[in-house]
Amino acid sequence: MLPHNCHKMTRPSLLNFFCAGNRTIELLCGRASARRPHSSHTMRSVVSRPASGFRPSKVAVVTKTTRCEFEQQRYRFAGLSEVDLKQLLAMKGSSYSGLLERHTIHTRNVEHIVKSLEKEGIEVRVVRRGEYDEEVVRWADAIISAGGDGTMLLVASKVFSKDKPILGVNTDPERSEGHLCLPVRYTHAFPEALERLQRGDFRWQWRQRIRLHLEGTGINPTPVDLHEQQLSLEQHHMAHRITTLERRRESGAQDDSFSEPNLLPVRSLNEIFIGESLSSRVKCKSLDPHLTFSLHRASYYEISVDDGPWEKQKSSGLSICTGTGSKAWSYNINKLVEQSVEDLLKIGKSQTGLDIPLDPGFIEKVTEEYNQSLVFSPEDKRLFFSIREPIVNRVFSSIRPRGFAKKVCVRSRCWDACMVVDGGTSFEFNDGAIATISMSDDDQLRTVVL
Amino acid sequence: MLPHNCHKMTRPSLLNFFCAGNRTIELLCGRASARRPHSSHTMRSVVSRPASGFRPSKVAVVTKTTRCEFEQQRYRFAGLSEVDLKQLLAMKGSSYSGLLERHTIHTRNVEHIVKSLEKEGIEVRVVRRGEYDEEVVRWADAIISAGGDGTMLLVASKVFSKDKPILGVNTDPERSEGHLCLPVRYTHAFPEALERLQRGDFRWQWRQRIRLHLEGTGINPTPVDLHEQQLSLEQHHMAHRITTLERRRESGAQDDSFSEPNLLPVRSLNEIFIGESLSSRVKCKSLDPHLTFSLHRASYYEISVDDGPWEKQKSSGLSICTGTGSKAWSYNINKLVEQSVEDLLKIGKSQTGLDIPLDPGFIEKVTEEYNQSLVFSPEDKRLFFSIREPIVNRVFSSIRPRGFAKKVCVRSRCWDACMVVDGGTSFEFNDGAIATISMSDDDQLRTVVL
Repeated sequence: MLPHNCHKMTRPSLLNFFCAGNRTIELLCGRASARRPHSSHTMRSVVSRPASGFRPSKVAVVTKTTRCEFEQQRYRFAGLSEVDLKQLLAMKGSSYSGLLERHTIHTRNVEHIVKSLEKEGIEVRVVRRGEYDEEVVRWADAIISAGGDGTMLLVASKVFSKDKPILGVNTDPERSEGHLCLPVRYTHAFPEALERLQRGDFRWQWRQRIRLHLEGTGINPTPVDLHEQQLSLEQHHMAHRITTLERRRESGAQDDSFSEPNLLPVRSLNEIFIGESLSSRVKCKSLDPHLTFSLHRASYYEISVDDGPWEKQKSSGLSICTGTGSKAWSYNINKLVEQSVEDLLKIGKSQTGLDIPLDPGFIEKVTEEYNQSLVFSPEDKRLFFSIREPIVNRVFSSIRPRGFAKKVCVRSRCWDACMVVDGGTSFEFNDGAIATISMSDDDQLRTVVL
Repeated sequence: MLPHNCHKMTRPSLLNFFCAGNRTIELLCGRASARRPHSSHTMRSVVSRPASGFRPSKVAVVTKTTRCEFEQQRYRFAGLSEVDLKQLLAMKGSSYSGLLERHTIHTRNVEHIVKSLEKEGIEVRVVRRGEYDEEVVRWADAIISAGGDGTMLLVASKVFSKDKPILGVNTDPERSEGHLCLPVRYTHAFPEALERLQRGDFRWQWRQRIRLHLEGTGINPTPVDLHEQQLSLEQHHMAHRITTLERRRESGAQDDSFSEPNLLPVRSLNEIFIGESLSSRVKCKSLDPHLTFSLHRASYYEISVDDGPWEKQKSSGLSICTGTGSKAWSYNINKLVEQSVEDLLKIGKSQTGLDIPLDPGFIEKVTEEYNQSLVFSPEDKRLFFSIREPIVNRVFSSIRPRGFAKKVCVRSRCWDACMVVDGGTSFEFNDGAIATISMSDDDQLRTVVL
């Protein structure tokens, strides 16, 4: 490994080096030499270590929209002033100054990140949530999510290459859990994180993601950005169905065969959730107001696990998650609270007569072990499906309500359901449509473990 | 008790007699005598029995809208023919003939009920779901719900007097559970049910219901019929908030005090469910499409049980149910599946070394006992609250996730949440609003146990 001449980090081709595991590419040590007096020593250490640093030249920092900004824009758009906003918030028992405080904390933490990067001669582009797109992804050598887990999910949602590194920094640790973000201490000490990255003192983590095929709708599946959904679902449906019928007639199609499965242009980092949406109750203005139907909170569908037999199901929804997502919504669906564990052990005790402990310490231990068993590695190549609140009666069978799988197929029997990807994008998933949910190594997301 | 002269049952005042428990009012035995040869014998039996028959003269039969009707109207409205409908359904893998079959079964069962009533000289009025209103309730001596549990909930929703009897008949037992309906055998043998009612061979059941006070919104709470909701929630909110601000300015109100608690014009037979609605993601067309916010599936709120301290909560929702509702949504939220019980007992076994049985029979027994403990009597005067999928972390405390109470107060910290009453009516429940949930004997619903 010979040192290159030092020069400013502006040309991506020379600087597009990343080290992964024991794979080394090139080392531009110029900057390192300039910073460290014992350059020759560093050179020798680098040569002996297989891993090398991570030194992107162009970094996009994607920032969340704080609630303060959101409320401001919302009311400004409605023609209300700042004074109006304060008053309305106060009426609600909310505090404008409180929102402003969180906003300031977030903004400062973003500045801290940006300054730290610029200090290293890295070209930084700060991109707001609404402006983030595939062009930004192409431009950047690495992308930093500056927000919470939601912002990380957004950032990941536009990355389809497993070579593009993503980092998450939690910009409001007091309010945000930040499971997907770097440890909280790097929020205020980002140079430390940068320094470790540059030294190669970290590990890459390729998080497995989920891919979706959709068929049987007879339509091109149109993703609906839940953030920007503008039509009522009813209007969507009717428009789609009429178009479908017309197209089929024009093409002279005689059979009722389904369209080919489409691979959807999304990859899920946490989970796919399938269920009837409350918005299914939004009726199109033009429909006869007397036309109503029984509300079903329950979702009806058929499920086939790893090409097994189709089983009819009625439940409040179906979650299919990755290892990453096993700590998120799926975890909350499946975890037990200590109260349930205690009640259950009491029953077990009374039914067996055995001396089962019921002290709080023991209850806590058993609960914790049970809940921990729900979590698995982000690198695990399996899916985990959970039928949420299954309804078992004369009509619906009871398959195993949760488990691992390589592939899950779901056929909708719902009136107005969605497939929701990472809580951010939804696809219509109505009666007759079939979703095939699986994983591929091609879909991995490259993240950092410090 | 002297017999009255027999005459046709047309005058409500003479016929408005109901027996409850050991309370007797009047007995019109004319009809009974006409039907039974041993009238004197019947008279003597009646005199010796405290209970007497139930003989309404005017009965409203409220019918559900079948899925077949719904799809027909939906497509007819969009200008599609029956042929189009069949084709679209087939494309979805649904069967028009299947829908028609269920429709026919329902219709026949309704006819059976109507004929049985008319045969007894009862004046019958068949009312479709969309036509059912308070005028029908006033007209009828009794109301029969002809459908499933959803139809029963609808019927109950417009009854505010505890004297008006409601009966449910399950018109499609193969597809519908009918927890709130009479036993399934009466669907095809309704005259038997009528006969028992007339003989007094039944019991009244007064089902407790929930009442709701709402305050702190600064607006008149407008119930949104989820069946007929036509504006996006965003449009609702903005309109309400601007109106509020204007009204306050006009009135010269200086303080930010909340409005008085309003008693809402609804009574819940099953449960109140509070949570963020997916439709919160529907954005008003006019809003800047770049304005987005992190999606929260979780609901934020504060809860106070029986005037206890306020506790911050984050969860996927909050359910507060009656005894009737303890077999419905609340049951599905709280029940355990055998797989969880098995996994838990395994952990208990390994942690204690005790010989806890793990055979399927034992698991089933323990699971069943646990789940049965969630169910309580419809006549019980207590509420049961359940925090669904509580999120416990650094920020949110963990109060007892479920339990009984006389009163529950909830303060919304949600962006776009609803309070959903029996899955049919919803009220906006946003940041700052406070709901007080309680019970009163005045709100009981009079139903029949055969």
